[in-house]
Amino acid sequence: MTHMLDYNHQEQWSNGFGTQQSPINIETKTAVVREGTLEFSTQSKYHLQQEVDDQTTVRLPGTGNAEIFGRSFAFQQVHFHAGSEHLIDGKQFPLEIHLVHQNAIGQLVVVALLVQTGAADPAFQQIIDGFTTGKTDPADIQIDQWLPEQPVGFHYLGSLTTPPLTEGVEWLVVTNPKVTVSAAQLDWFKQQFPYDNRQPQELNGRMIEWYK
Amino acid sequence: MTHMLDYNHQEQWSNGFGTQQSPINIETKTAVVREGTLEFSTQSKYHLQQEVDDQTTVRLPGTGNAEIFGRSFAFQQVHFHAGSEHLIDGKQFPLEIHLVHQNAIGQLVVVALLVQTGAADPAFQQIIDGFTTGKTDPADIQIDQWLPEQPVGFHYLGSLTTPPLTEGVEWLVVTNPKVTVSAAQLDWFKQQFPYDNRQPQELNGRMIEWYK
Repeated sequence: MTHMLDYNHQEQWSNGFGTQQSPINIETKTAVVREGTLEFSTQSKYHLQQEVDDQTTVRLPGTGNAEIFGRSFAFQQVHFHAGSEHLIDGKQFPLEIHLVHQNAIGQLVVVALLVQTGAADPAFQQIIDGFTTGKTDPADIQIDQWLPEQPVGFHYLGSLTTPPLTEGVEWLVVTNPKVTVSAAQLDWFKQQFPYDNRQPQELNGRMIEWYK
Repeated sequence: MTHMLDYNHQEQWSNGFGTQQSPINIETKTAVVREGTLEFSTQSKYHLQQEVDDQTTVRLPGTGNAEIFGRSFAFQQVHFHAGSEHLIDGKQFPLEIHLVHQNAIGQLVVVALLVQTGAADPAFQQIIDGFTTGKTDPADIQIDQWLPEQPVGFHYLGSLTTPPLTEGVEWLVVTNPKVTVSAAQLDWFKQQFPYDNRQPQELNGRMIEWYK
């Protein structure tokens, strides 16, 4: 028997917020394998137009459009976390790139790219070269080349990883991005932003889809 | 200048939960008009299999599948609020039917039917006749006939209207359902459940789409 809901004292209703948070440690053995690739395709260029020192990361607002699981989204901004916030079977990646998207009614989708070290990336170098501590600068950087045509990885429902920690955020965690950064590029970022990782949050029974 | 985010004290981060709640008063003059109809089409019969006295409403779990704005959802349950929880330009409807849907990753869509009084509805009469106070009974009721083939109305992002008041819930508020209830049927419901309406919540800048 559930507790009787009192409509005369609605202000006392408790809520369950905070149970579907991000990032998470993705345990691949519990993920549900799906046919095909993550449904994410760009419909126009991703063009970064501003570069902001956000104190804990560098954030670059821009423009672009994508089709994501049947709906149209506008690209809003990209930012970075080093090392990665999402873990796969407990493993952390050197860098995680967050591409934040929103649609007309305000649904949020973050496409996260899990990035390995390797060859230096020219666009990431433009970001390094364009950075001014404590300042917002204009930018003119293209990042389409980071996005694979056949993205694979994980799909789940979580939250923003910084306040306001909004829930209902759809995550596409892409494991085959077409970008690596060099050790020197990663070092630059970590020197600017030594610690910008939210700890992994409880899964609380959420399903993770794995497109692989 | 924003306040520096302290990753060493993540447990102190405040959150913004509670700013995108449902129901709302839909002000049509601020809604953004869209071409076409609400993207909601059933893919299989909506079949109610159980009838539950939920103390504040009658809830009927069942099965069914629908395509909603590009994604596949499973129908979970239907329940009722009298008068309506959503208002249109301040106007309350006699009855609001909530068809709750969920997809694989846990996204929630509620299709709300705003119902006028008129002819008695046979399926709603089956629900009345099958109700036992304080009990859960088996049911065998079809409700496909309530759903218009060309649904029109409103689309916005909100929350459940009862605890846990979960946000990130997508609402389709349908203004042309193919169901009315008689005054006697409505009276029966209100006698069982005299007050089951959450008050309208603040819009807080959310966009409402209007498919009309």
